[in-house]
Amino acid sequence: MNTIQFRTSVLPEDAEVVREIVSSTGFFYAIEEEVAVELVEEKVIGGEQSSYRFIFAEIDGRPVAYSCYGLIAGSEHSFDLYWIATYNDFRGQGIGKLLLEETHRQITKSGGLNVIAETSSLEKYAPTRHFYLQMGYTEAGLIRDFYKMGDDKVTFVRRL
Amino acid sequence: MNTIQFRTSVLPEDAEVVREIVSSTGFFYAIEEEVAVELVEEKVIGGEQSSYRFIFAEIDGRPVAYSCYGLIAGSEHSFDLYWIATYNDFRGQGIGKLLLEETHRQITKSGGLNVIAETSSLEKYAPTRHFYLQMGYTEAGLIRDFYKMGDDKVTFVRRL
Repeated sequence: MNTIQFRTSVLPEDAEVVREIVSSTGFFYAIEEEVAVELVEEKVIGGEQSSYRFIFAEIDGRPVAYSCYGLIAGSEHSFDLYWIATYNDFRGQGIGKLLLEETHRQITKSGGLNVIAETSSLEKYAPTRHFYLQMGYTEAGLIRDFYKMGDDKVTFVRRL
Repeated sequence: MNTIQFRTSVLPEDAEVVREIVSSTGFFYAIEEEVAVELVEEKVIGGEQSSYRFIFAEIDGRPVAYSCYGLIAGSEHSFDLYWIATYNDFRGQGIGKLLLEETHRQITKSGGLNVIAETSSLEKYAPTRHFYLQMGYTEAGLIRDFYKMGDDKVTFVRRL
């Protein structure tokens, strides 16, 4: 695999990049895709005013994965991992792992202690849950039928 | 105790009402008080556009307690209980209990199934945690040192 480079600046064209990455995974609803794109647009307009932060993983200058995270309001050092997704053609190469490690590094640099990630209990998200456990997260909450009937919310926490 | 009346409309002067109620409790930081007031202002400006909903408990026409709740984005029928507070002089009279029951009724009417409330693990919030348990909530999550060192976040869920 070619070298991965991480970029933390956010460009206007990243709205489209994020749409393509998120949409390629087949993991998210159209409305979730919209939210993902809106967070980028908000960041482009708001700059440092926006609490959202992004990391793009690039191979040969092409963004193939990204994460979006931010300090949780009311907390001193707990960060939400809002999004992490890899372009479908680049899955299975360990890019998500490297990107999440880089995200943890950036959060640590900002004084962060806890990283919180939420996902669904559906079978479809078994690889996601496995990924978090592999990355040192532990389950810290479960809300039955949270998203809809039969679709629970699972909360994972990683202590940095 | 005189009869309690519930009001779900939100008036511009409720910003000040909420500030007084929240501040009287001594339970919240100044920044949290600001957030509570901002939610009211957002509702006054946004009307139905705002996803926040409010219930004011009034005695002899005076608002003495309020709750603020709303449907969680991405969920079909899970509601967040953002705020519930009783004016300090009126605590210990069961007003919070009646208000939360009314809040549950309104959420049920809107098709809600889950109500989620978060609070702190600090000793100071023991009455709050006791209140939720008494009201049929169960603990569904715990994140250590979430707010700050030694101050965990406890998540409670009530199935309606």
